[in-house]
Amino acid sequence: MTEEMAGPNTPLIGNCWYVAGWGAEVGRKMLSRRILGRQIVLYRTADGAPIALHDRCPHRSMPLSRGRLEDDQVRCGYHGLRFDTSGVCTEAPALGRPLQAMTVPAYHLMERGPLLWLWLGKGEADETTIPNTEWLCDGCWSYGYGSMTLSSNYVGLHENLLDLTHFTFLHPGNIGTPEYARAPAHVTVEGNVVRIERYVADCAVPGIYASTGMADGRISRRTVSEFSSPGLHAACVELKPLAAEPGGRDLFRVRITHFVTPQDLHSTHYFFTIARDFAQQDESATERMRSDALRAFAQDAEALEAIAENQALDPAFVEKSMRSDQAGVTMRRILKRLADAEASP
Amino acid sequence: MTEEMAGPNTPLIGNCWYVAGWGAEVGRKMLSRRILGRQIVLYRTADGAPIALHDRCPHRSMPLSRGRLEDDQVRCGYHGLRFDTSGVCTEAPALGRPLQAMTVPAYHLMERGPLLWLWLGKGEADETTIPNTEWLCDGCWSYGYGSMTLSSNYVGLHENLLDLTHFTFLHPGNIGTPEYARAPAHVTVEGNVVRIERYVADCAVPGIYASTGMADGRISRRTVSEFSSPGLHAACVELKPLAAEPGGRDLFRVRITHFVTPQDLHSTHYFFTIARDFAQQDESATERMRSDALRAFAQDAEALEAIAENQALDPAFVEKSMRSDQAGVTMRRILKRLADAEASP
Amino acid sequence: MTEEMAGPNTPLIGNCWYVAGWGAEVGRKMLSRRILGRQIVLYRTADGAPIALHDRCPHRSMPLSRGRLEDDQVRCGYHGLRFDTSGVCTEAPALGRPLQAMTVPAYHLMERGPLLWLWLGKGEADETTIPNTEWLCDGCWSYGYGSMTLSSNYVGLHENLLDLTHFTFLHPGNIGTPEYARAPAHVTVEGNVVRIERYVADCAVPGIYASTGMADGRISRRTVSEFSSPGLHAACVELKPLAAEPGGRDLFRVRITHFVTPQDLHSTHYFFTIARDFAQQDESATERMRSDALRAFAQDAEALEAIAENQALDPAFVEKSMRSDQAGVTMRRILKRLADAEASP
Repeated sequence: MTEEMAGPNTPLIGNCWYVAGWGAEVGRKMLSRRILGRQIVLYRTADGAPIALHDRCPHRSMPLSRGRLEDDQVRCGYHGLRFDTSGVCTEAPALGRPLQAMTVPAYHLMERGPLLWLWLGKGEADETTIPNTEWLCDGCWSYGYGSMTLSSNYVGLHENLLDLTHFTFLHPGNIGTPEYARAPAHVTVEGNVVRIERYVADCAVPGIYASTGMADGRISRRTVSEFSSPGLHAACVELKPLAAEPGGRDLFRVRITHFVTPQDLHSTHYFFTIARDFAQQDESATERMRSDALRAFAQDAEALEAIAENQALDPAFVEKSMRSDQAGVTMRRILKRLADAEASP
Repeated sequence: MTEEMAGPNTPLIGNCWYVAGWGAEVGRKMLSRRILGRQIVLYRTADGAPIALHDRCPHRSMPLSRGRLEDDQVRCGYHGLRFDTSGVCTEAPALGRPLQAMTVPAYHLMERGPLLWLWLGKGEADETTIPNTEWLCDGCWSYGYGSMTLSSNYVGLHENLLDLTHFTFLHPGNIGTPEYARAPAHVTVEGNVVRIERYVADCAVPGIYASTGMADGRISRRTVSEFSSPGLHAACVELKPLAAEPGGRDLFRVRITHFVTPQDLHSTHYFFTIARDFAQQDESATERMRSDALRAFAQDAEALEAIAENQALDPAFVEKSMRSDQAGVTMRRILKRLADAEASP
Repeated sequence: MTEEMAGPNTPLIGNCWYVAGWGAEVGRKMLSRRILGRQIVLYRTADGAPIALHDRCPHRSMPLSRGRLEDDQVRCGYHGLRFDTSGVCTEAPALGRPLQAMTVPAYHLMERGPLLWLWLGKGEADETTIPNTEWLCDGCWSYGYGSMTLSSNYVGLHENLLDLTHFTFLHPGNIGTPEYARAPAHVTVEGNVVRIERYVADCAVPGIYASTGMADGRISRRTVSEFSSPGLHAACVELKPLAAEPGGRDLFRVRITHFVTPQDLHSTHYFFTIARDFAQQDESATERMRSDALRAFAQDAEALEAIAENQALDPAFVEKSMRSDQAGVTMRRILKRLADAEASP
């Protein structure tokens, strides 16, 4: 059974850090977001600490996000139960006292650079396992960012990210070039991490990288795409001009990081950052790369949604894989194994 | 099992009088309305008698409401079958004669004041059990009225009406005042009727009662809320100025009556009247109380719909009750018992 | 069990020629259409041959219609797999070669006059069984045409077409006249073909036939309606002036042909042609008959959709039939038998 692959109906995986949102989205106004099929309310205390609670009053299921913040606590907008940041009921107005039996699940929500990482798993949250995204935190890289919610399952998005042969056909003239589909690729697996390296020896500069200043020449392009966890895919790109000018720069690095957070089985929150180690003060470069990435990822979203419709129409249909699917298939077996492990008692 | 409470998936209760609509809505144009999951067509004969038939031709399921009235009878708009007010087929045009085998269920529909009461139960309809709403019929009380359809199950609406501690939080500055949540309450149960009495000894006049003319003073407020049946909740309010002017009025009475008619498991027709025994010629008082009530009930509707979404997301979630839920919990046990009784053979 | 009738939940019948669309709709731009619950992509080769493929790439389920035509072949817009008109993969760019294991089902699609006929059945497609519609192909009859997609199951549409007693009630003043409902009818059955002949000896000229030029007189009207297959209903109408002018025409013939193509269990593509053997050069006659037919068929669609809603509300409801349903009931038994035969191993 370990041969089986995860698909659009495989149960979601709880024991994983997922990005719940951008730090900048969450403040003193409550934000409700569905993650792994659970409704979560996000806010910050007066001191700025990010808080995540189940967005459902344990009393009569009212979304807490429809209530109001009172200092650091949440007042339910129905019968006025008040909960602190750990989910303990500190006041039940109808009783005139706190009510310990009434608690709301509170979740670990950790801030790392621009990201808020959420743990909804069964086991204890281990902060040391929050994915490393230091290049978004250390000020050495500039980056743009964006997000969208896809009407499709998250497995397909991971598979999309591991198989860049689609660049040539789905994203021509943006991040794709004709050589990309046939570029040699090498897959390595370490535990539950799947890495695929792809090397294009000689191509034109794709539109999205025009801000490198290499627009006129030819380049080599090396991409290492890594499925790091159910919630994270990280790609590192190295661009080298084939004929670097004397004294000119001979390496341009880009990191495109994809934060994949299932909303439920049928939809997926998709956050991304696109960081670079060049032209760091150039805001137009940030904007250009951001908008080109967003355009490409919107094409992915549209394709994945069309695929989801086809899959829903005939769920028994068995898709055929080929050699270039090695990374994706390996990743889907890992997801299936993780889901099975969580399902077993 | 008698401990179990009705919830949003408990089967609806047929053996009960429900308000099908306002008398003023129904006339010589057929009106189709879904009640207890059944489509019903309502109209009046030339003499004004209100008629309710199953809105489905027994022949090929065409809604009869899409046909036309011919005197007191209904002509189906598909193949022209004609039915009288008792549901008997009086003409089958393709046969050139009546067709006794073809009958449409006809239901008891009784008019009481502004209301049309419908019986869809299995047993014989007993008109003597139609709820008493004489204050809407006798001309001694003035009233305003309104209605809406909620996208949520009816049980939650009944629970909302029995637990007025929510006034303070969901309806501040309208029908709620800060004292309301903590006001002492007393619950009594008689058969399948649940009554809760709530007394506020000293509060400002809530906005909705400004038309009493007591706007400047302090009052006491006594509310008796009664779950009378699955289709009816009746509240009586007594307002007394703490310092009545010499020779002035010392009691103002209001009756807010809630007619709760399940459309199906997931939606509910909600009709209400708000009657008063003061300022009876003052139409602006009627309008003010009506629109304030409508605003408050729309807040209830919004809350109940948000709750329904949360409940649908995780139907296995067990809500926790507290002491102030006594009336609601009792009512939900009664509804469960009634539903179980109808389900048993 | 052979007595059972097909209803809105009876499995669809695959072994039948269905109209997939008008020839004029399909060209060098791919068209995606759902037929029998399957998504089909339609296009033409450079030479004009009509092609039908499953609109789902066997690799990762991408709709092929979102890709592009390269000469006569389809290039998938996701990973660039290319398929020829027989569904064979002629190039897998990531592999740099064709991939025989990767095939798309290709379906028989035959052009006859203005129609494209599709075979999705299990057995071999037999072109000799494509229904004869020579009057649409031979240039001797003029015709108008139209189409719509109904939100209802196809069985009800066939039943509608076989029972014209509804003309009087659903289409008064257009194709219906008061005499129609009671006109004597005669049913004959030959194998899986059901024919009903209806004769009105004396009626006014219905609006739709005003272009015969007989507007002022009285006519006789004979209609032979034939359920020919799950995908086809063909009606022939003969109109005769009761008092033909000396030397004037004494017979006007009309053929209304209904092409019924289930989209899925709950919706139906409906194509129709209305042909005549008179006023053949008169384009305003074409337009008038087309628009009158379209108006009537839109009334049928509306009725069938209202019926479908009623049926969905209570699927256990058993409709009652009467003598005038003989043709429809016979047809529904045939459909049930055909569906059962396909379901058996």
